[in-house]
Formats: sequence, structure tokens, C-alpha cells
Amino acid sequence: MGIERINLNGSLALSRLVFGVWRLADWKMSKDDTQALIEKNIELGVTSFDHADIYGDYTCEELFGRALTQSSALRDKMEIITKCGIKLISKNRPDHKIKYYDTSRGHIISSAEHSLKNLGTDRIDLLLIHRPDPMTDPDEVAEAFRQLKADGKVLHFGVSNFSPIQYDTLNAYLDDPLITNQVEISALCLDQFKNGTIEHAQLHDICPMAWSPLGGGAVFTGEDEKAIRVRKVLEQWSEEKGKSMDQLLIAWLLMHPSKIIPILGTGKIDRVQKAMGALEIDLTRQEWFELWQASEGQEVP
Amino acid sequence: MGIERINLNGSLALSRLVFGVWRLADWKMSKDDTQALIEKNIELGVTSFDHADIYGDYTCEELFGRALTQSSALRDKMEIITKCGIKLISKNRPDHKIKYYDTSRGHIISSAEHSLKNLGTDRIDLLLIHRPDPMTDPDEVAEAFRQLKADGKVLHFGVSNFSPIQYDTLNAYLDDPLITNQVEISALCLDQFKNGTIEHAQLHDICPMAWSPLGGGAVFTGEDEKAIRVRKVLEQWSEEKGKSMDQLLIAWLLMHPSKIIPILGTGKIDRVQKAMGALEIDLTRQEWFELWQASEGQEVP
Amino acid sequence: MGIERINLNGSLALSRLVFGVWRLADWKMSKDDTQALIEKNIELGVTSFDHADIYGDYTCEELFGRALTQSSALRDKMEIITKCGIKLISKNRPDHKIKYYDTSRGHIISSAEHSLKNLGTDRIDLLLIHRPDPMTDPDEVAEAFRQLKADGKVLHFGVSNFSPIQYDTLNAYLDDPLITNQVEISALCLDQFKNGTIEHAQLHDICPMAWSPLGGGAVFTGEDEKAIRVRKVLEQWSEEKGKSMDQLLIAWLLMHPSKIIPILGTGKIDRVQKAMGALEIDLTRQEWFELWQASEGQEVP
Repeated sequence: MGIERINLNGSLALSRLVFGVWRLADWKMSKDDTQALIEKNIELGVTSFDHADIYGDYTCEELFGRALTQSSALRDKMEIITKCGIKLISKNRPDHKIKYYDTSRGHIISSAEHSLKNLGTDRIDLLLIHRPDPMTDPDEVAEAFRQLKADGKVLHFGVSNFSPIQYDTLNAYLDDPLITNQVEISALCLDQFKNGTIEHAQLHDICPMAWSPLGGGAVFTGEDEKAIRVRKVLEQWSEEKGKSMDQLLIAWLLMHPSKIIPILGTGKIDRVQKAMGALEIDLTRQEWFELWQASEGQEVP
Repeated sequence: MGIERINLNGSLALSRLVFGVWRLADWKMSKDDTQALIEKNIELGVTSFDHADIYGDYTCEELFGRALTQSSALRDKMEIITKCGIKLISKNRPDHKIKYYDTSRGHIISSAEHSLKNLGTDRIDLLLIHRPDPMTDPDEVAEAFRQLKADGKVLHFGVSNFSPIQYDTLNAYLDDPLITNQVEISALCLDQFKNGTIEHAQLHDICPMAWSPLGGGAVFTGEDEKAIRVRKVLEQWSEEKGKSMDQLLIAWLLMHPSKIIPILGTGKIDRVQKAMGALEIDLTRQEWFELWQASEGQEVP
Repeated sequence: MGIERINLNGSLALSRLVFGVWRLADWKMSKDDTQALIEKNIELGVTSFDHADIYGDYTCEELFGRALTQSSALRDKMEIITKCGIKLISKNRPDHKIKYYDTSRGHIISSAEHSLKNLGTDRIDLLLIHRPDPMTDPDEVAEAFRQLKADGKVLHFGVSNFSPIQYDTLNAYLDDPLITNQVEISALCLDQFKNGTIEHAQLHDICPMAWSPLGGGAVFTGEDEKAIRVRKVLEQWSEEKGKSMDQLLIAWLLMHPSKIIPILGTGKIDRVQKAMGALEIDLTRQEWFELWQASEGQEVP
């Protein structure tokens, strides 16, 4: 069984849906269960796994890596994405007194090397700068990327939560162009459609990745007016089309011509499988705007 | 009699003032009166007519076209601008349940063909995408433009209400560059001077077209503070210079070095003729900023 | 004694700290005292002086120039920066009825020539357009710059308070690229880090100049919450590091990789000397963000 793959730049393809590992520590899974979860995702065609050094208070990469090292064949069947650049206040990082960013050459390299060790692998397929850092020295980032690539430790680079000008500036300093910008996109968060980020991705011919593609769950339980309006549309569609609200929210993203890649946040394999049902939903353009209008609370201008 | 013409791109020139047809249906004119209105505009040198498929609830193009087809010589004396991409709720479009946008290849082509039929002509001089569409596939727009041009149905392309990044993105996908961005500009709406749109037009060496160049009439009757402040300046100038407030507002736009092309919204030929008086008004730079300051309610920083 | 110099474009270098002359008229100094102040700055290595035609209600350039012409050797030891484009209401400019901008070819040239005469020099090292002018004709600015350069009257050009798109547009019309953008930057004014201006400078490989690098003094006396939060951090650092709050604020700017050039606003040479102490302060990245967080009132996202 396979699902469509998205070719990011000629040499890296991701699965159409990506598995987000950020809550792995919360799921309290055994090593075997974690391995089984990974394997089942791969069987379903969800071969790309989205990490960050800081997920689970700096623990998720290692939990994942332990499962991975149990089966050496597993690594070659997947794409590993991870991130660096945020420093969290954490008992695991006692020298951090505040939350801050670090995109110095030294930190990028040591963070990536730390991720390699935690993940029990010799390469990261895609490393992202996690947040735009107001203290960025683009020359240092470029040097770090160059060295990590030369050493075979990281194969491709991207960013997360970058504005167009932030993206263009870093990109101009790099040997190889950035290949994605991972941002929050959902029917509940239309910001990227309105601040130029989606158009910018189309201008550079890159595919955006979407975090919180279900809007952080607000659509299911939120009592604010936006959540209520969006839920109402989804409930009606759900009844008419026999599809779940998750599936409809994912389908709404998949329909966009910029080839948005949603990152699933569930640890339950049956919810992953269900989400894949989104791949078979065809929404009309009018329906796409019906959800847009519900989110906006008014019709388009 | 003639007025200055603005060369948009070497092969299309518009009259310095453009006649806006959006309220033609409201004017309840006979076919003969419509024809006479068109002919008088052309005699005055106002040879460019601004349409959209949706004006008059999808009826204005046809009302204009009927007058046009009465006199086959008329078409060659004018430039026809029209737009596509908005789908209105309308008894004339019963399948539209909400207002939404459609910039799919199929819709752009069928909308332009519909416009040709309604206008009773074999070519549109300038076709604009009416609003930036968050669901834009720039490849599809490019294909639609390519085909319409290859078929001789549309000679030039532009956009309306686009931000700089929206403009740049679409432009990057096209064979021939966009030649205008039609946006709201007036002494009452300074947005485009402040959000980068005017500079962007200068960067690309295109002339912006201005809809609502009189600020939608608020300056004559509005009771908000901005309208009152602007009116006060115009009334004083009107007395000093012996010019009408319309003329002064148009002159204020014409003075801008980006060569803003105002779209007149009146159906009365004597008001068109009067607006042409704006072409002979010379405002000083200090006066230009006097109106700016009145609109802003404070001096420049 | 010398301090680091910042090379702006291969042929113009400024001192790492720039002396701002905007309040010279307020200091009520004699010609001799002014000359002494200039000479002492140069001895300290602060060789770049930042003017504008309008400073001191159009008087500062002349006050500076009188001191300069007393010692012909002095001119060759310094870089003179001045600005044009704002027209102030002033008893010295009775034809200005309102404050407005003028970036016409004629005004730029005559303003620069006026500055040369007032400053008692034959050349301006760096001329800036003081504010983005919504009535800019970039062709006229380019012509004015071309002529001033051809005549040897101005050697380099830049802008002040420009947004990225304003910068790009003017830049595209010029023979020689702009070499700086002088904007407000301080721990109390983070705008330029958030609106793309700093990244844009890095993209174009130019060094921004910072006006009000101490935040206009609010940090010392301000009772708003932001000032109180920032002051609290600075007071603590001041105690720990034995450095003054001025020095720490300047050091915070100097640390930024975009090579921000702060403009000092004091007329007291001992405060200039003290500010130079900032050059020897090393803040950690975490400390940089500690001040950022205090200014923002919340941790980074």
C-alpha cells in the first residue's frame, strides 16, 4: 500500500502525510510499541517523521531512536526531519535561564550531532531552523549547513515559521536553496494565506509543511465563534459525505495547489489510517471557500 | 480633442482617464443613449472602458455590448478592460451558494469567452484577475492566459487588488508580464501609498489604475472626521482655484509620478467632461501633502 | 587611539560609533568649544558625524561648519553624513505652510548644495533621503544623485526610515546601490527586527545605522511597563558587570551580526568616551535575549 509522495527538490521526497513525533513522550509507549507504531506508519505509506530537538522536553528524538535501533532495516524506509535553534528552559538544560534562540554555527552543528546520536542514525534527511532568530548571522548558518552537508550528517535544509523576507535573506546566503517552510496552516489558521507565506512558497516552488493541520483541536471542542462556525460546516459535510471532521480538515489542506504537507499529531495508528481517508475526498472550490468563509466569519471581499 | 494617453507596455495605451462601466445597469439607459454616451466619451478622448464580468449582477457587459454592436466602427476606437475570478451569489448564477473566487484555468477561459460574447467583440484589450484568490494555482492562470492570448481573445493581462507578493508570484509564472494592478486609491484611501503597492508598481514600471478615485463620494457627504477634514481643504481650494472638488481629487491622483490612471464612475457625460478639467490643474507638492495631511489627520512623521 | 571601523561599501568606512549632531544648537556652544568637541571625538576614533539639513531648525549644519572652517585640516579626518527631503515649518523657511517631503530633483540638489555651504566643505561623504516620500519619483532621485556624484559634491547615498520595498524600489533606479538605511533601533524599539528591515539589510549586505540607540532616554526615566522591565535588567547587569546602562544598551546593539552602527546623541565628550566602553562588553546570546524578553514583556514564541 502506498500514498502519493511529494518531491521537494529532486532528491528528497516526503510522504503526502507526515507523522509528527512531538508528543511521543506523552504517549508513554514501550520501545516495542514505538517500533510497531513506526512500522505501521511505514506500511501505510507514511514514511516521513517530523521531529525537533526540543520535543518532549528534549526526549522524543531519543525515544524514537531507541525503537529505531532495534531494527536496522527501518531507517532506510523513512525520511527523518528534525529542527534546531530553540533553547528551552528545562531540567535537561540547566544552563538555560530563559527560553531563547541560538542559530550560531556552533549550536546548529552540535544540535544536529546531538539529534543524530539520539535518533540512532547517521543522517538527518531534512534539518529545519525552528524559528526565525532576530540574532541570526546568515553567514554562520550557511557555514553550519555547509559543514553538516559535507560531513553527510544532514542531506537537506529548510526553515519553520519564517516570513518571506526572513526566508529570502537566509536563502541568499546558502549554497543549496532551502526546500521547505514549515508553518501553521489549517482552516482555523488562515494567516499564511493572508501574510504572503503561501504565495512566497509558490514563487520559490517549494511545498509548505503544515503544523497543527486540525487547528490544534479547537474545532472539535472550542467555544469561540470561529470554532463554532467551522465546526458547523464540518458537521454538515460529515453527515453529507460520510467523512470525519479530521478527514475533511486534512482534505481541505491537501486540495490547495501549493501542495501543503500536513503533519499528523496522533499516536494512534487507526487515526493515521483514518486521516489517509482524506486523500480520497474531493472538495469543490465552492466548498473550499465555504470553510474559508466560516473561518473568517464573513464572505470574501 | 484629445487627452494624454498612458502607454502601459509598448503595445497597449489607455486614455489618461478611464470610463468605469460598473453602474451602467443602474443608469437604466436605452441602447441608443448608451451608444451616445460611449461615442461622447470617445470624442472627449476617454477611449478606455473598465468592465468586469460581475458588474450589474452580470449584466453590464451585455448592456454595453448591445450598444457597441449597433455601430461596428466603434469598437476600434476604444480599449476594453474586463475582469474575472469572482463568483457572486446571483439569480443569474443559481449554482453559486456563496460568494467565492475561481481562478482555475477553465473558469478564466470561459469567463473571458462569456465577456467577449456579452460585449459583442472578438477581443479584450486587457483582462484582470479581479481579486487575489487564496486558492490560486499560478500554473493554471498562466495556462489560461497563454491560451486566451494564442487565440487572440485577450491581448494583455493584469490584476486587481493584489499585494506586492501576490503580484510577484503570479508574474513569475507568466510568459508576458502583468501590465497593471487596479487598486483603490484616493485622497481618502491612502492604503496603497503605505502598504508598498505604489512603490511596487514603480519597481516594476507599471502604472496602477485607481478605482474609487473620489473616495466613493464620502468626501462630499461623509460625516466622519476624515471626510470632513479633506472636504474642508477641497472647499477652500475650490474657492481659490475655481475648480470643483471632483476635479481637485482627480488632479491630486494625476499629479503622482507613478502615473495613476483614475477610473471615473459617472454616467453623465458632463461630469466626465468636467473631470477632464483636472488635466489642467497644477497642484504644488505642498498642496499635495496638504490633502495627505488632511486625510491622515496629522502631519507627516 | 582608535576604534573599529565599519566598511560600508568598499570605499566608505564609518567609525563603529557615530556622533549625532542633531542637538548641537541646543548645546549653545561657542565656535571654539564646538571645534574642541569635534577634535576630541576624532581623537577618540569617533570620526563620523551625522547631520540633517533640518537639525536645529535648519541651523546645526552651519554651527558645525563654522567650527570646521576654523581648522582646514579637520575636514579630512572625518566623514560627514547629512540628509535631505523633509521640509519643516520654520521661521527660517517662511514658505513652508505645513511639514512635508520633497524628493524632487531640484530640491535634493539644492538641499545638498545648501548643506555644503553650511558645513563649509566641498563634499558630503554620505547623503540620505530622510524619510520615504509618498510622492517620490525615483527617476528624479536617481538624476539628482547622478548629478551630485558627477559634480563631486556627494560621494555616497543612502536612505533613512525606509521599508524593504521602499528601499528596493529606489535602489533599482540608481546607478550605484544605496549603502545604508538609518532607522530607529534599540532595546526599547524592536520594530526593525520584526518588520523585516534588519533581514533586508542583511540580504543587501548593508549595515543599518541606528538612531535613538538608547531608546530616547525612556529607559532611564520612563514609567511605562516596558521601560521599567528593561531598566530592571540593565540595573542588575550594571551591578554585576560594573558597566553603565548606556554602555549596556550600546553593547546590545553592537553585538548584532548585521553590524548596526549606533548614533550617539550626547554633546558631552565624557559620555562619548563612556559609550566607547560598550566596545569592550561581551554579552552572551542568552543575555541578548534577556533584554529582548524584557522589552517584549514575554518570552520568544
